[in-house]
Amino acid sequence: MKTIKIGIIGLGTIGKGLYDAITLNSSFVFNRTGINLKIVGVCDKDEKALQVIDVEKYGINIMSIDDICLSDEIDIVVELIGGTTIAKDVIIKALKNKKHVVTANKALFAEYWEELFSIAYENNVLIKFEASVGGAIPIIKSLQESFVINNIDTIYGILNGTTNFILSMMRDKAYSFDKVLSIAQDKGIAEKDPDLDVSGKDSAHKLAILSLIGFGIKVTANNVYTEGITNLDVKDIENAKKWGYEIKLLAIAKKESDGVQLRVHPTLIKKTHLISTVNGVDNAIFIKGDFIEESLIIGKGAGSRPTASSVVSDIVDIAKNILLNKEEGLKYKLTDNVKEEKIKSILDLTGSYYLRFSVIDKIGVLSEISKILSKNNISIASVIQEERNENETVPLVILTHIAQEKDMSKAITEINNLNSITNNTVVIRIEE
Amino acid sequence: MKTIKIGIIGLGTIGKGLYDAITLNSSFVFNRTGINLKIVGVCDKDEKALQVIDVEKYGINIMSIDDICLSDEIDIVVELIGGTTIAKDVIIKALKNKKHVVTANKALFAEYWEELFSIAYENNVLIKFEASVGGAIPIIKSLQESFVINNIDTIYGILNGTTNFILSMMRDKAYSFDKVLSIAQDKGIAEKDPDLDVSGKDSAHKLAILSLIGFGIKVTANNVYTEGITNLDVKDIENAKKWGYEIKLLAIAKKESDGVQLRVHPTLIKKTHLISTVNGVDNAIFIKGDFIEESLIIGKGAGSRPTASSVVSDIVDIAKNILLNKEEGLKYKLTDNVKEEKIKSILDLTGSYYLRFSVIDKIGVLSEISKILSKNNISIASVIQEERNENETVPLVILTHIAQEKDMSKAITEINNLNSITNNTVVIRIEE
Repeated sequence: MKTIKIGIIGLGTIGKGLYDAITLNSSFVFNRTGINLKIVGVCDKDEKALQVIDVEKYGINIMSIDDICLSDEIDIVVELIGGTTIAKDVIIKALKNKKHVVTANKALFAEYWEELFSIAYENNVLIKFEASVGGAIPIIKSLQESFVINNIDTIYGILNGTTNFILSMMRDKAYSFDKVLSIAQDKGIAEKDPDLDVSGKDSAHKLAILSLIGFGIKVTANNVYTEGITNLDVKDIENAKKWGYEIKLLAIAKKESDGVQLRVHPTLIKKTHLISTVNGVDNAIFIKGDFIEESLIIGKGAGSRPTASSVVSDIVDIAKNILLNKEEGLKYKLTDNVKEEKIKSILDLTGSYYLRFSVIDKIGVLSEISKILSKNNISIASVIQEERNENETVPLVILTHIAQEKDMSKAITEINNLNSITNNTVVIRIEE
Repeated sequence: MKTIKIGIIGLGTIGKGLYDAITLNSSFVFNRTGINLKIVGVCDKDEKALQVIDVEKYGINIMSIDDICLSDEIDIVVELIGGTTIAKDVIIKALKNKKHVVTANKALFAEYWEELFSIAYENNVLIKFEASVGGAIPIIKSLQESFVINNIDTIYGILNGTTNFILSMMRDKAYSFDKVLSIAQDKGIAEKDPDLDVSGKDSAHKLAILSLIGFGIKVTANNVYTEGITNLDVKDIENAKKWGYEIKLLAIAKKESDGVQLRVHPTLIKKTHLISTVNGVDNAIFIKGDFIEESLIIGKGAGSRPTASSVVSDIVDIAKNILLNKEEGLKYKLTDNVKEEKIKSILDLTGSYYLRFSVIDKIGVLSEISKILSKNNISIASVIQEERNENETVPLVILTHIAQEKDMSKAITEINNLNSITNNTVVIRIEE
């Protein structure tokens, strides 16, 4: 059994999500990779956070930070404390004790990546940070691995869900910034001290990390020109709309012949641009490279479970490295755990339909068709019959309410046999 | 020097893209991973295809299929012949000779994945296939690695660029299917024999692969209910529009308690849905999982360079595995090749601007402001001044043409000092 042992430091929002992920869903990791994930120890200074952990069921130890960093039983330390003080000490201690480290800490990583990479290298362990940017969006892996052959020259997008939620709601409800901020705080979308988000600093941290990984250049958040959204008025959003624009807090990195642009600021962007359609707490990251051309990834930018998903992705990558270095190796056949599953017939489908009948335009045709539909439990939502040309073939178009494919199939066969139908009916399914 | 040696079989569209990628951009791979990629041999039955290879400059050998599959000098064989006959024999021969294999062949993989995985496993080598689905979109890696902890229950999207191009143009130009198909053929977007694309079979191959990887279930394209787009009329697209829908050829896989839905067919989807905004040859894949919630990846679904980019991603993944197994290991510090780069000042920016002035509403104010703008080389594109309230503060909103940030900065400082300005001016940059 290839088991990888994990210590989690910090059981806040993401830590709890990681605990849930591994305890509920580790069978998915096993089926996809042959690797078993086991939480050996957790720690948190808050007693209440520890109470949600079922130590007996999962054989988890409540430990101190030092114990986790020093334990011979632990392969990977996951730092989920946040901030740049204790978290930094913890990561360095873990690395120096030859533990691989996974972190979601963008503020820390954006500032101290050089030092952290060096310590990891000297100790022959890995430090990974997919969850530090874009929540569930696999942006670090895409830049480092999927787009590895590309000269990436542009990275931009919405990197902060809190501000995108605020701007979306200011637009939709015409509420003031202050009012929406307080709604966001009530919903847990904005922090009590919202400065890091609304000032644009959080986006700047993330843009620094993306520029480091995507462009391969030395940057920290201090290199990013940063403006927040606190000056924006609902009127600005309405004015922008009149000219065909949305206002988004964009983070923009562009490599140009005479240097690199790095900036975070509210931006007017055409309503027809895909990024304009990204609302609420979603994040969206747009990448241009000389081989991929353009790519856009949209997903949850924050939250307990989406962020935990990215933490696990890093854990499993490190696990594969650990196992490849060991004698037992990683030899694993995906097909060992591929299951037979019942594939449903299209006749089991339920949905609404677009129907285009080619009918001879004469009195009673619509009634004939609708009788057959109704007999087969299909009800009509809407009809278009614009062209009229008595005794010639004209299109009759119907949108149905929810129906069963097997009923539809029967009805259409019957209808196609009518004398007044001159061509096979076009049936298009509707996906809501 | 950690060099990985590659043999390329087939120098068609993707093969040529791969040759370009490795010869032009391998420094990006080296900087990101410390790995050197080298093309050792190529083969193609077409003499003309071979002529584009600069064998001397890059030290590349023109070889036979057998030589590439058998050579001790080659670590990874890339199969880019396509089709399900010769390609299958080639891949099996390479695997049996302990060569790792990368392929972009969806038709082959969708049908024979079980056999190919088994042979690879028995011979302790890898077979990878990122480029088989979604061109440059990193969908296989996302499903296998980034979303590894997720119970993925829905995968759907536009998996075929040719049909999406045809449907987009039928909508935009109101041309018939036949007319657009012939335009697409002239542009090289549709094949001379377009059946595989327009029948929906190509999408079905890809959906089978995504269901195998995402759901972990045994499927081939034969399990996918498949309809193409040949029956669609421009009128259908126009009718759908009246009801607020677009028509897209969607590939849909849904895991439900009583079985799995697998279907490819033209689908009405609300114009407000993100997938409706994906036009032309782009592909888009939407994934739902219990931890990521929802994620959408959009990118080039085909073409020489985008597809080659994904082939290289697989090559580098295999290279890391090879090196981790060797004594020299993969020890590599990203920061070794991170460069210092000039970060441009925000004052170097060029763009257009949204300006909101808080002005005392009196005669001459607009002229005062526009004089300062004009003096600083800023020209006005549009003005909104709706509220009027003499001698009170009202907003005056201006959209500028392209200007220099340093000019803008000077102008705004000057304007903010005017007596008629009661609050600092709000400046929002426009991104086109």
